[in-house]
Amino acid sequence: MGGQAAVMKQVVIVGAGFAGLNAAKRLRDERALAITIIDRENHHLFQPLLYQVAMAGLSPADIAVPIRSVFAGDANVRVVKAEVQSVDTDSRKVRTDSGDFTYDYLLLACGAQHTYFGNEHWEPYAPGLKTLSQATEIRYRVLEAFEAAEKESDPEKRRRLLTFVVVGGGPTGVELAGAIGEMSRYTLARDFRQIDPRQTRVILVEAGPRILPSFDERLAARAMRDLESLGVQTWTGARVTDVTPEGVTIGNERIAAATVLWAAGVRASDVGRSLKDATLDEAGRVIVDEYLNIPGRPEVFVAGDMSRALDENGRPLPGVALVAMQQGIYVAQTIKADLRGKPRRPFRYHDLGQMATIGRSRAISEFGRLRLTGLIAWWFWLLVHIYRLSGFRNRLSVLIQWAWSYWTFGRGARLIVGKHWRSYNV
Amino acid sequence: MGGQAAVMKQVVIVGAGFAGLNAAKRLRDERALAITIIDRENHHLFQPLLYQVAMAGLSPADIAVPIRSVFAGDANVRVVKAEVQSVDTDSRKVRTDSGDFTYDYLLLACGAQHTYFGNEHWEPYAPGLKTLSQATEIRYRVLEAFEAAEKESDPEKRRRLLTFVVVGGGPTGVELAGAIGEMSRYTLARDFRQIDPRQTRVILVEAGPRILPSFDERLAARAMRDLESLGVQTWTGARVTDVTPEGVTIGNERIAAATVLWAAGVRASDVGRSLKDATLDEAGRVIVDEYLNIPGRPEVFVAGDMSRALDENGRPLPGVALVAMQQGIYVAQTIKADLRGKPRRPFRYHDLGQMATIGRSRAISEFGRLRLTGLIAWWFWLLVHIYRLSGFRNRLSVLIQWAWSYWTFGRGARLIVGKHWRSYNV
Repeated sequence: MGGQAAVMKQVVIVGAGFAGLNAAKRLRDERALAITIIDRENHHLFQPLLYQVAMAGLSPADIAVPIRSVFAGDANVRVVKAEVQSVDTDSRKVRTDSGDFTYDYLLLACGAQHTYFGNEHWEPYAPGLKTLSQATEIRYRVLEAFEAAEKESDPEKRRRLLTFVVVGGGPTGVELAGAIGEMSRYTLARDFRQIDPRQTRVILVEAGPRILPSFDERLAARAMRDLESLGVQTWTGARVTDVTPEGVTIGNERIAAATVLWAAGVRASDVGRSLKDATLDEAGRVIVDEYLNIPGRPEVFVAGDMSRALDENGRPLPGVALVAMQQGIYVAQTIKADLRGKPRRPFRYHDLGQMATIGRSRAISEFGRLRLTGLIAWWFWLLVHIYRLSGFRNRLSVLIQWAWSYWTFGRGARLIVGKHWRSYNV
Repeated sequence: MGGQAAVMKQVVIVGAGFAGLNAAKRLRDERALAITIIDRENHHLFQPLLYQVAMAGLSPADIAVPIRSVFAGDANVRVVKAEVQSVDTDSRKVRTDSGDFTYDYLLLACGAQHTYFGNEHWEPYAPGLKTLSQATEIRYRVLEAFEAAEKESDPEKRRRLLTFVVVGGGPTGVELAGAIGEMSRYTLARDFRQIDPRQTRVILVEAGPRILPSFDERLAARAMRDLESLGVQTWTGARVTDVTPEGVTIGNERIAAATVLWAAGVRASDVGRSLKDATLDEAGRVIVDEYLNIPGRPEVFVAGDMSRALDENGRPLPGVALVAMQQGIYVAQTIKADLRGKPRRPFRYHDLGQMATIGRSRAISEFGRLRLTGLIAWWFWLLVHIYRLSGFRNRLSVLIQWAWSYWTFGRGARLIVGKHWRSYNV
């Protein structure tokens, strides 16, 4: 054998989200590695801003970057657009719809999708928000509801068209509800002649006792008041029992609503099920040790929303972008340590806080003991998100569109594209 | 009757393209008019840049503006998203899928669509480029062809995937072919590992003796050389005899091509057929007099691509944006003259020239006797198009994206969005 460096080690990364992308970026300069990134989409998505695409504030291209272009200059990085079917940890193979890929190291970071808790048939009537195509679908539904209401003469039908229900009081639900409230009160206020969009009903439904349970209680209360000022009613302790094309049932109460959006609960990617050495938790997440490995497989890492790792206090880490990013970087560091014969160190999450926005110029932020609300929190949120966007062009474009929206209350991407074509988006 | 001003006259404008939008903009300050704009889309489209959306250089929101937002401040302008079914000139009614609209003045400006000259079954295999959804469909097909080629091991199949045929040698065909050539030679050159996108075959097929027949012969020859330098082969005198999922047949020669785009010939909107007083030409265009009226109906105007008007020399005016814009403005002036009891003047087209781009930094422009080629023509094209874009935000955003693409050869909107959703776009 001609020395270690001559034998290229195969690193396969499944999923180019925050975990996968950050791992690959930190491994690409290792000459001893051949890296294969497998994703079913051709783009990395900046998911924290996906609700802005759904709410017509940004275009898909503003928050997504082609994976290939990120690694265009790295000859040792290959990008494959394929769907993973299973992983065989004995033969070290990833099986996809476009062939098998053998690995020396594997990072599984396939993320999560929405779950309807056994009522998956609700999905067509209450789409979730995880992909660009879902975001454009939601945008279509929201804008089309206002158009249909403008043409409707029956007051009851019109009321149903102008009722929007968002299920789930986490950050995504709060951001969606706040954006619909703001859109109807400001952006669309003068656009219609038959209806007054300010009469729009937006209901945020949360099964638990309060919204934003991961935040400090006072911040969550402030967010609720901010939502109220945008016309959003918050119903806590309210469990959805049925969703139909006509609307949603909460307990025994039926709400006629043309648009229902789902932001309530996630389930990890199904790829984890094929790992015969691994245990899954109740949300389908792969339980990993402090090295993000599954039992007996130090060459297999699972990170991001599809894994369940614990913090120092034994609590599961939240499914947020910051955890995924840090885990991706950690996996790269661990593989590099192996290559250099150094010992591995356990993963440690550095909690940098959390944020949520409520419409234009309101937000709540929590950084350790520091808590911000209102305009300052919003500016902070804006800066952090623009800074984090991957790619200079996106940052600048998003900044300009936000500045423009901010001053004009306009939403430039307020487009409905017809059904004339079978339809691919973006 | 309480004086003329007290009786609101109903102006119905069908189609918010260049003709309809410009007419409405110039009529909105007339207190004596109630204006209804009917369009099946919710946006006005800057069609001269549509090929940039198809080629992933721009996002849909960059070249489209919601019609409602243009007229948000005008209480006398109503926007209806509806599909027109027919026009009854006797009862002065426009029938739509959302009810009837009565007019005192009618402007029909519904544009045109592609025609396959009796072979409409070719459309699924050779989409045209008239709407945003067609543009995103074409973008999907082109990007997906490269992805599929990267995964294909059979050299013949791979060659088919990397063969692109553009049918029609007018400005749109030239711009599409040039953009594919440029994308493969620059933008995507380093993105793939198994294929070399520079091996891409791009064939521009034109049935006539030369491309760009409306341009000066020397300019067209220069455009052809520019296309060649981007790897585009131009086949003139070549008539398409069949299009199938496998490719295209030209005369007796079959070309295996995964992607065929149609830019060859247009047919006016079907709305004209319902005008019983009017005569249509062979392309379905409504023949109008020098006041853009149909016979005996001074209250009915037909403008833009769906009308056939003549210039001073008796030649039909071309179906370009500038004609439509000037006609829209003319119709507004005519209605205003009527309101003030002034005589009507015939329409006169002011020819401001024509332009076409060939990839990055090459173009041809013709302004009377002034003819420009190369980089100067391209800068001129850029300035004119940015200036003409409706809405400040779009202009700025497009400018930045172009500047970015120009320096980096990147195409920011290079996104493929999956089929997971039924799919509406943008």
